[in-house]
Amino acid sequence: MPAVPAWPPKSAPRLFVETPLSEGQRVESEGGQAHYLGKVMRVAPGDAVVLCDDVTGEWLAQVAEVGKRAVVLEVERQLRAREDVPDFWLCAALLKKPNFDLVLEKATELGVGRVVPLVTRRCVADKLNPERARTIMVEAAEQCARTALPVLGETVKLDALLRDWPEGRVLFFADENGGEPVAEAFAAHKGPAALLVGPEGGFDEAERAAVRAHPAAVAISLGPRILRA
Amino acid sequence: MPAVPAWPPKSAPRLFVETPLSEGQRVESEGGQAHYLGKVMRVAPGDAVVLCDDVTGEWLAQVAEVGKRAVVLEVERQLRAREDVPDFWLCAALLKKPNFDLVLEKATELGVGRVVPLVTRRCVADKLNPERARTIMVEAAEQCARTALPVLGETVKLDALLRDWPEGRVLFFADENGGEPVAEAFAAHKGPAALLVGPEGGFDEAERAAVRAHPAAVAISLGPRILRA
Repeated sequence: MPAVPAWPPKSAPRLFVETPLSEGQRVESEGGQAHYLGKVMRVAPGDAVVLCDDVTGEWLAQVAEVGKRAVVLEVERQLRAREDVPDFWLCAALLKKPNFDLVLEKATELGVGRVVPLVTRRCVADKLNPERARTIMVEAAEQCARTALPVLGETVKLDALLRDWPEGRVLFFADENGGEPVAEAFAAHKGPAALLVGPEGGFDEAERAAVRAHPAAVAISLGPRILRA
Repeated sequence: MPAVPAWPPKSAPRLFVETPLSEGQRVESEGGQAHYLGKVMRVAPGDAVVLCDDVTGEWLAQVAEVGKRAVVLEVERQLRAREDVPDFWLCAALLKKPNFDLVLEKATELGVGRVVPLVTRRCVADKLNPERARTIMVEAAEQCARTALPVLGETVKLDALLRDWPEGRVLFFADENGGEPVAEAFAAHKGPAALLVGPEGGFDEAERAAVRAHPAAVAISLGPRILRA
């Protein structure tokens, strides 16, 4: 018995669309998605495409027409409901662009619910283009077969994050000076949570003190070494 | 009580050297290391430098002279013994250069004992410059404060790896079609082990069958999604 259904094939293109999907619906892909389907994946009428809408889940669609500017798809049937996303946030200090791109990509693949870009004292970067960031997250979700997109929060400063921290959400703090082993800390706190990670140069002493003093904070250790951002 | 000793300061340069270290020894840094110490870190006589030799462990040294071509260091005292390295190998299919660089960097930071570069059917890259790879691993060990270097194995083809697999070493196989949850599988096998991961396009069906048929193989799942190489 194959572990994977034969249709759609594993190589079928996967795309997130902005409109909620339903059976029999016609979806017109334009712009970058049409280019991707027509020119990169070279789809032909009858080919399978997997669509997700971030609301209902994942659907099988068939290519109906391949035009110069648009590819028309017909939605056939639902394949999977939208997955349940763990209520887990990643609050990550901004890094130089390619490194933060990788953070967005891996956070999406690993399944976080929300990414909160942070500005801290030692951040080299202090701006994030949210459209570009969302594109990276959508592409990561497409390639790893997520049926849900993480939410991209506003870029905030660390002091504002701590001041407005929602009650009842644990803030795991990756502290290079040590804390509880991460596996045990995660196992002990099952509710809403977030992971806070610093920039290339780490948090400064005042920031570390402010985080540790926060009632929601739980210092964790990611092991004996300092992982490079 | 500070969790970190005040001397050497955390910002002290860290370097691996090729000769075994001992108290009172004079170490002459030349070439890239002298450039790094003198021009990048701008050390001056009396500054602390942390040295590792991958044999005895980690030592505190003091800058004695800063010359045009060489920096002379005096070894003062041992800070830490060389760490015990878990007997865990990473057998990783070659990827395009920057992606495999990241694999080498993160494998070093996370503490693997040996990296075995693999060539599989769907590898886009099929060569690795071992000097360059070792430089990346040494720099990663320096930055994350490891006191031991991972070993870089020869680049081998998957069939040769399986044919010559050492008896008694479990081969965890990251199978995109599923397997035991990784945490449980790791917990159940405490001895010598290795993790096998495929290239951008995954393993092909014949390769998957060959790995699964190997007596040392244990298929594991890294979660419901396909992580991008």
